Amino acid sequence: MPTPFYSPRDLRFHLYEVIKAENLNQLPHFADHDRESFDMVLDAAGQIGETLLRPLLTVMDREEPQLVDGKIRVHPQMRAIIKRFGDDGWINAPFTHDEGGQQLPATIMNAATFIFGAANYSSSVFPFLTSGAANLLRSFGSPELVAMFTPKMYSGEWQGTMALTEPDAGSSLSDITTSAEPTDTEGEYRIRGQKIYISAGDHDATDNVVHLMLAKIKGGPPGAKGISLFAVPQKRLKSEIRDPQSEILVDNDVQTAGVYHKMGYKGAPIAHLMVGSGEGAIGYLVGEPHQGLRYMFQMMNEARVGVGMNAVSIGTAAYYASLQYARERPQGRPMDQKTMGSPQVPIICHADVRRMLLFQKSVLEGSLGLLLQCSYYADVAHAGEGEAAQHAALLLDLLTPIAKSYPSEMGCLTTSAAVQILGGAGYTTDFPVEQFYREARIHPIHEGTTGIHGLDLLGRKVTQQGGKGVQLLIGEMQKAIAEATVYPELTPLANQLSEAISRLTHVTTHLLGLAADPNVFLADATLYLEFFGIVTIAWQWLRQATVAQLALPTAQGDDVAFYHGKLMTARYFYEYELVKTLTLAHRLQSDNRVTLDMQGDWF
Amino acid sequence: MPTPFYSPRDLRFHLYEVIKAENLNQLPHFADHDRESFDMVLDAAGQIGETLLRPLLTVMDREEPQLVDGKIRVHPQMRAIIKRFGDDGWINAPFTHDEGGQQLPATIMNAATFIFGAANYSSSVFPFLTSGAANLLRSFGSPELVAMFTPKMYSGEWQGTMALTEPDAGSSLSDITTSAEPTDTEGEYRIRGQKIYISAGDHDATDNVVHLMLAKIKGGPPGAKGISLFAVPQKRLKSEIRDPQSEILVDNDVQTAGVYHKMGYKGAPIAHLMVGSGEGAIGYLVGEPHQGLRYMFQMMNEARVGVGMNAVSIGTAAYYASLQYARERPQGRPMDQKTMGSPQVPIICHADVRRMLLFQKSVLEGSLGLLLQCSYYADVAHAGEGEAAQHAALLLDLLTPIAKSYPSEMGCLTTSAAVQILGGAGYTTDFPVEQFYREARIHPIHEGTTGIHGLDLLGRKVTQQGGKGVQLLIGEMQKAIAEATVYPELTPLANQLSEAISRLTHVTTHLLGLAADPNVFLADATLYLEFFGIVTIAWQWLRQATVAQLALPTAQGDDVAFYHGKLMTARYFYEYELVKTLTLAHRLQSDNRVTLDMQGDWF
Repeated sequence: MPTPFYSPRDLRFHLYEVIKAENLNQLPHFADHDRESFDMVLDAAGQIGETLLRPLLTVMDREEPQLVDGKIRVHPQMRAIIKRFGDDGWINAPFTHDEGGQQLPATIMNAATFIFGAANYSSSVFPFLTSGAANLLRSFGSPELVAMFTPKMYSGEWQGTMALTEPDAGSSLSDITTSAEPTDTEGEYRIRGQKIYISAGDHDATDNVVHLMLAKIKGGPPGAKGISLFAVPQKRLKSEIRDPQSEILVDNDVQTAGVYHKMGYKGAPIAHLMVGSGEGAIGYLVGEPHQGLRYMFQMMNEARVGVGMNAVSIGTAAYYASLQYARERPQGRPMDQKTMGSPQVPIICHADVRRMLLFQKSVLEGSLGLLLQCSYYADVAHAGEGEAAQHAALLLDLLTPIAKSYPSEMGCLTTSAAVQILGGAGYTTDFPVEQFYREARIHPIHEGTTGIHGLDLLGRKVTQQGGKGVQLLIGEMQKAIAEATVYPELTPLANQLSEAISRLTHVTTHLLGLAADPNVFLADATLYLEFFGIVTIAWQWLRQATVAQLALPTAQGDDVAFYHGKLMTARYFYEYELVKTLTLAHRLQSDNRVTLDMQGDWF
Repeated sequence: MPTPFYSPRDLRFHLYEVIKAENLNQLPHFADHDRESFDMVLDAAGQIGETLLRPLLTVMDREEPQLVDGKIRVHPQMRAIIKRFGDDGWINAPFTHDEGGQQLPATIMNAATFIFGAANYSSSVFPFLTSGAANLLRSFGSPELVAMFTPKMYSGEWQGTMALTEPDAGSSLSDITTSAEPTDTEGEYRIRGQKIYISAGDHDATDNVVHLMLAKIKGGPPGAKGISLFAVPQKRLKSEIRDPQSEILVDNDVQTAGVYHKMGYKGAPIAHLMVGSGEGAIGYLVGEPHQGLRYMFQMMNEARVGVGMNAVSIGTAAYYASLQYARERPQGRPMDQKTMGSPQVPIICHADVRRMLLFQKSVLEGSLGLLLQCSYYADVAHAGEGEAAQHAALLLDLLTPIAKSYPSEMGCLTTSAAVQILGGAGYTTDFPVEQFYREARIHPIHEGTTGIHGLDLLGRKVTQQGGKGVQLLIGEMQKAIAEATVYPELTPLANQLSEAISRLTHVTTHLLGLAADPNVFLADATLYLEFFGIVTIAWQWLRQATVAQLALPTAQGDDVAFYHGKLMTARYFYEYELVKTLTLAHRLQSDNRVTLDMQGDWF
């Protein structure tokens, strides 16, 4: 039996038992959908994952992209994969029927993303990026631009990218220097600059690449306020043609200077681009001038939830690999049966191995719940109305840095636990867990480092609209506590979450009291993010435990073990993870300023 | 300027200012040594590291060993490197003058190991293993065996290994099935079995490989009590010759079935061996029958301190790479200077980056102190007399699982922090930190997994001789507290260590109260190990801070920054790391048995 890479049962538990995603069809935008159509989508994603993506997991790692004659060569199967994503309508699935999409809720689309990422993260990156870039175009671009670019992006013939980072501007985007100069044609600019770390920025599995690129129009305001968004294709239509159906493409002076070789997710090419080093690349202005960062952030916020989801994907694949190994590998004996002669037991019988499995399961299924909940908020914010939509938007905004960072940071540790369960075998390339360990390490870095998200959470999100997002979230948590308290078995967890919320409130109040000195206020924002993340996942586990507690008495067959597992894992998270907030609260309320007092030359 | 990979200043601080290693020459065995001779050794190690090992760091990772025609090919430079280690007397440096050695203290030898590992861990593995294997032979083998094997091991012509693990026996060594049958020649046995994960188990950089191999003599007692130790060379002297000087070697039926490809430290070959699948390999019994595990554990205990040291080595190299990057990379502005126009500042100015640097520095320099202290105990235990020697032996025994595991576990996190400081660049192969991240991951696995060391600490070491080791250690900690309390600046740290000790004592007493049920008692031994490790490193930092506090008022030049850095880093460790014992104590004293209650089929 091949190793499973995710649990369809668990995914449906989140969607239909906890979040009740099927209720989304009460919103007119999703009225055509129901649980049956959702299940068809999930089954189709599972099938693609299993038959198309997973078989290439290892080979795409071993045969990484290479730059040959100025073009990046990727695995030859990638063309067929991207085509399949296009043909099956995955790239524009969330968009409207008018645009050829399926008006699929983000909740279900992200569940599919989870499956694809768990099957083979590298391969899933290509269509995911095109979808995001196309979304940016259709949200802010003129009808002409949308018509020029999106059909071939939806079909998988053209790749889309996000082109932000430059050699001197990564976390600090206000410092980009790529320039845009107006041409004689309205809306067209000559773009010149360098972009680095551009995912899928060049490759031979599509016929063209459309970069959604940040640049500064000459003479515009300095810093972030002078950043505009452009569509900069690798090949463009001839100016005199401008017919989107034309197949005559000319080179647009976007050269590939290099491909990065990296520790993991090697199958996805990351390019270094020289833009307009000849006559200048033509860039088509998307939306209004100087609004580029605002536009881009809309896409980045979605991408951030996507990154969190991919972190859970990789972690989940590693978890199931280590679970299978733990069940099959005999080694050692129970602590109270050390006499020789008795057969060795599977290592899953050892408490320490179960601890490492519970650690993975609790972090991953807690995170998956959070990410699907965030996707649900996105759907309500986007397709709902009135206060419900506003509240969902605020909750999503508040939770985005957590939904991105908690799974990303913890994914490094859960994949590490998977390696540890396999021991020496886990360190070899004979098993996939070492690959997952390498792949997981990207997520705390891309789409904003964890440090950046800490600043975003504490420096911006927590105080937005007078702290309304936090109030709403605590309201949601208290609702979960009230629902859990019905069951005496869950009262201890409910009480612990109450305590953790009050601890979080204290810490937040304490930190806001320091806001007059932003250096002090934000010095430990990363730890605050960790703290907030743990409490948020505890909330998710209380909801899951409540559903399981309700379902257990009447559960049948495999569901009995499933719900028992949920209840145990909730207990684990509270006992081993939530308790970490003790230490974090202690530190965050201390007046020791050692990271500020330390001088650079004292290292 | 090339990136430094360790700090000679810091190494000398530990050796001469904290541990006062030069006092070892008060023991007759080390009487010929003094600080000057130690410094010559350290300088020589630094020179080899810099000129011979470090230049091959990247290439040995990229061009990993391959099995070609039944022989593992390693990097062609390895032959010269091993030869150089032999020629310069590194392999037998700790052994007696009579044996051609230098009677070099383990303290200094391990300091050299630290340097070699920081320069290029893979390359340092070969001579390190030979030295360990030779030590086992000279400690327990007959004069004939010593004469037959060790000269060519000392000279670097022959490789030594430790051959323990089998496909069905890794952590559970009592389950090995490799068999030994007596031949007509006394002391010679026919060995048959399989050994896996044998480091340097076959390669083309030496002329022969001598395996110190565990096997069971047929008809012996079952389990661990029936394990004997054999020297099983890849090629042996003809039985009719038996002249150690003879160059006529014949094949000994030890075949290489494969080389493992692994995530990191790729330059060192790890072999899968088929032993005696033909006529049987000749194995020479080392010492008495059925004493193999006891002998091997002596070597393994040394190797475990060595593994901890190598974990610190790799972490240190990553720390200095990230420190250099943080000083050179401009990005962003201080939190209170967000206006544009001001130049970007080096990222070391950001509190979050300093936190990640302090995290690395505090863990690594704390661990280096502990490992050198353990080495010092080894020297006193070995070369000292009476109570001092006994106490040193007890302390070393108690601390060995910590000295192995704390740096190994934390090395995964410190190298991760190094990657994070470099951001996207850190994830690429353009910088060495991703390699260090991959290499660091082996250490929690080999020479006993962290889980095994937790069991060793709590299940065996803590209660040895009625808990005398723990009493001695707490005595040492209290001595450090008394010395620190002289300085008002250090009183807060001293008080925190006192509290941590009392917390540790409480937790230990609580756990020992559960010993009647070993499953419950040992369920969280890994967390106990972590707890104990943190307190131990806090002790080391208090000692370092005391030395720095005393030296600072009269310090000159660069030493002013150096001692300031030590004091700040001590503060950091107490503020951010020691406080983790709060959470761990909470968990370890809880009666929640979730890892025992969870059932295998509930996952």
